[in-house]
Amino acid sequence: MENIKVGLLGFGTIGTGVAKTLLQQQSLLQAKTGVTLELAKIADIDISTQRDVNIDASVLTTDAHEILNDPKIQIVVELIGGYEPARSFILQALRNGKHVVTANKALLAVHAKEIFETAIQHHVDVGFEASVGGGIPIIRAIREGLVANNFTEIYGILNGTTNYILTEMTEKGEPFDQVLRQAQELGLAEADPGFDIEGIDAAHKTAILTYLAFGQHIALEQIFIRGISNLQTMDIKFAAELGYKIKLLALIKQNNHAVEARVHPTMLPVDHLLAKVDGSFNAVYVVGDIVDSTMFYGRGAGMMPTASAVVGDIVDIARNIVKGISNKIPLLPAPQEASRYTVQAPDRFRSGYYLRFTVIDRYGVFSKISGILAEHKISIASVIQKEVHPVNSVPVIMLTYEAPEHAMQQAVEEIDRLDLITDKTVLIRVL
Amino acid sequence: MENIKVGLLGFGTIGTGVAKTLLQQQSLLQAKTGVTLELAKIADIDISTQRDVNIDASVLTTDAHEILNDPKIQIVVELIGGYEPARSFILQALRNGKHVVTANKALLAVHAKEIFETAIQHHVDVGFEASVGGGIPIIRAIREGLVANNFTEIYGILNGTTNYILTEMTEKGEPFDQVLRQAQELGLAEADPGFDIEGIDAAHKTAILTYLAFGQHIALEQIFIRGISNLQTMDIKFAAELGYKIKLLALIKQNNHAVEARVHPTMLPVDHLLAKVDGSFNAVYVVGDIVDSTMFYGRGAGMMPTASAVVGDIVDIARNIVKGISNKIPLLPAPQEASRYTVQAPDRFRSGYYLRFTVIDRYGVFSKISGILAEHKISIASVIQKEVHPVNSVPVIMLTYEAPEHAMQQAVEEIDRLDLITDKTVLIRVL
Repeated sequence: MENIKVGLLGFGTIGTGVAKTLLQQQSLLQAKTGVTLELAKIADIDISTQRDVNIDASVLTTDAHEILNDPKIQIVVELIGGYEPARSFILQALRNGKHVVTANKALLAVHAKEIFETAIQHHVDVGFEASVGGGIPIIRAIREGLVANNFTEIYGILNGTTNYILTEMTEKGEPFDQVLRQAQELGLAEADPGFDIEGIDAAHKTAILTYLAFGQHIALEQIFIRGISNLQTMDIKFAAELGYKIKLLALIKQNNHAVEARVHPTMLPVDHLLAKVDGSFNAVYVVGDIVDSTMFYGRGAGMMPTASAVVGDIVDIARNIVKGISNKIPLLPAPQEASRYTVQAPDRFRSGYYLRFTVIDRYGVFSKISGILAEHKISIASVIQKEVHPVNSVPVIMLTYEAPEHAMQQAVEEIDRLDLITDKTVLIRVL
Repeated sequence: MENIKVGLLGFGTIGTGVAKTLLQQQSLLQAKTGVTLELAKIADIDISTQRDVNIDASVLTTDAHEILNDPKIQIVVELIGGYEPARSFILQALRNGKHVVTANKALLAVHAKEIFETAIQHHVDVGFEASVGGGIPIIRAIREGLVANNFTEIYGILNGTTNYILTEMTEKGEPFDQVLRQAQELGLAEADPGFDIEGIDAAHKTAILTYLAFGQHIALEQIFIRGISNLQTMDIKFAAELGYKIKLLALIKQNNHAVEARVHPTMLPVDHLLAKVDGSFNAVYVVGDIVDSTMFYGRGAGMMPTASAVVGDIVDIARNIVKGISNKIPLLPAPQEASRYTVQAPDRFRSGYYLRFTVIDRYGVFSKISGILAEHKISIASVIQKEVHPVNSVPVIMLTYEAPEHAMQQAVEEIDRLDLITDKTVLIRVL
């Protein structure tokens, strides 16, 4: 049986999972591809720490170039993460005629075009299923299964760490900082959790999905991004009383060929399927003009689920190698496709809102707030006054009808300047 | 731009949807494939009825052989349904070197092997994404995205008609016959609804998924099949009181390489994601040893969702034609793969059970029932006596722990012979 040699760059959690999968599933993968996928080399700066997989010392190296320059290695798997040296390594591998599989969403969010152009130029493929939604084959669904559709909406839970934190905050009523610490102890949040909790990781994935669905390279500055670090348990509780659950959603919408992209905590009706997606699971709705709504659910992160996606890509490339082809699925959008869409400014979207004002409980406050909202053409759907504060100020909760984000931001800014308002107004977008 | 000619066999609902999609999405499909997908010919015995799409009369024919024997047509789409002439037409198309796309689950459930072998022999492809789960790209997920996995379970809602009926029965409390009639009036159930309501359609799809996941051709007799036509609203109500919802589930499980396949009404905990899948939607869980749980959701039937899957397959084949390849994804299981698994007899599975006994309310009945269950080593988890009947007999409800199906059937048969039992015992399997 023919061998196809695979080289791994990065022997961290995902790298270990990929090595385990290639070894453990060897006969399955032979049956599926007709070739042997040989784990030929693994490069990492740390090759002394024992991983949870038995790898011959001769396979390990600290020098990535032993993989990048080995003419016998046909598939390079980049699992280093971050921008450099990952980008340079990938480009070098492609230029050396090697196919690349990567899980690197931060890199693809910014450099997809350069990487894909280089791959096409050198007649090799890039597999990146693991970059969005972990083990969920969402990228394949958008590029292949649902290819007959113009997409109207893609939205869902794309970050497992924040979904775990929100689930714990909701179920246990514990504050953000405490739950984050627990998540870090459990290995479910990184020591430096900024990318996850501030919505950057979900925004990277949003950029990749936007590129795939609409051929639009979207800069992070074009995505409206809010994280979960300021979320208070009080609002999670009030949301529950109103029949909502709060999830960090990524939302991409296309309306008359204008594309909006955003990531923010979102109130979902409790009976929405996404409201049932808890813990570190991810789920993405993909809505197309032909297929209507579809939804894809699975583990969005973790050693083995991510390895499932990476090895799925390795198999796809191996099957291409067997057939002697590359670039069967176009990596770049056709020019006529990309030119159909424009990207909307990040605060131009419309949403319903949950507002929590902290007010001094006295006559007149409601008329002032509703006056400012009316000036900005924002209609109030309901008002709930809560009597929970021990001190002089009370929370007043409002749900509004759909309004433009920029109008809402201006209105809240004006409201927060009122003397009657004793704390910054909390604003959560409602699906 | 190069043309690839497509011929349609069958101009019913799905055929109309495919024609609409090919015309309406022409520029999108050009961008995705680099070729023009030309709807060259449509064959149907009825070409006089006006469909909801504008087709030139010269494209229509009543003679399928005008498509099957046209050397310029490269892709034949079979949407006739049923066994003959669909099977003969497909085999002829393949032998004439044409790629085939089909949505025909009944045919594939029985003749997949013959069709796939013929395709391989003639170096052409068969696309059949639309045969399971309508617009949901579930077949692609199993054959490609999740290819790194040994599957342990595949289960879900695979029939939209029965799911619509069960949803209506649950929400409105109306009896089966009445809801079926409404569904027929709405076009959501066929005039002859047997295949849907007796679970045969779901069993066909179960056979296809079993073949894909385990390489096992499974006969309908090897699938345990129960439909929904005997379901009573009383049991739906009692299930709700106990925290369950009843759905017609298809379940494929693999345990130590023994594969079991079944289709039956199933009680699901209300907080299970599948319990939220209502109306004509389908959803399938796919569980693998590497990826853990994944779930795929979307419209399981209907003109346009099914067309989305069919056209997705047409695009895939067009991309293969452009690259000059076929059979990139193996249509047949590798011999070493198929030989790993065996198919279990249909009543050998284990399940928890909901039992509703109709008993004469007198002393001694409970000890007799529990005695028989104990003899068959079936453990009772809980008992609820309902006081709703106006006459002399009352329903007694039991939930049992997991037990073998054949033991349960024997026990119920013995129980139903008791004098104290005045009606056939209702038995619903619990997930």
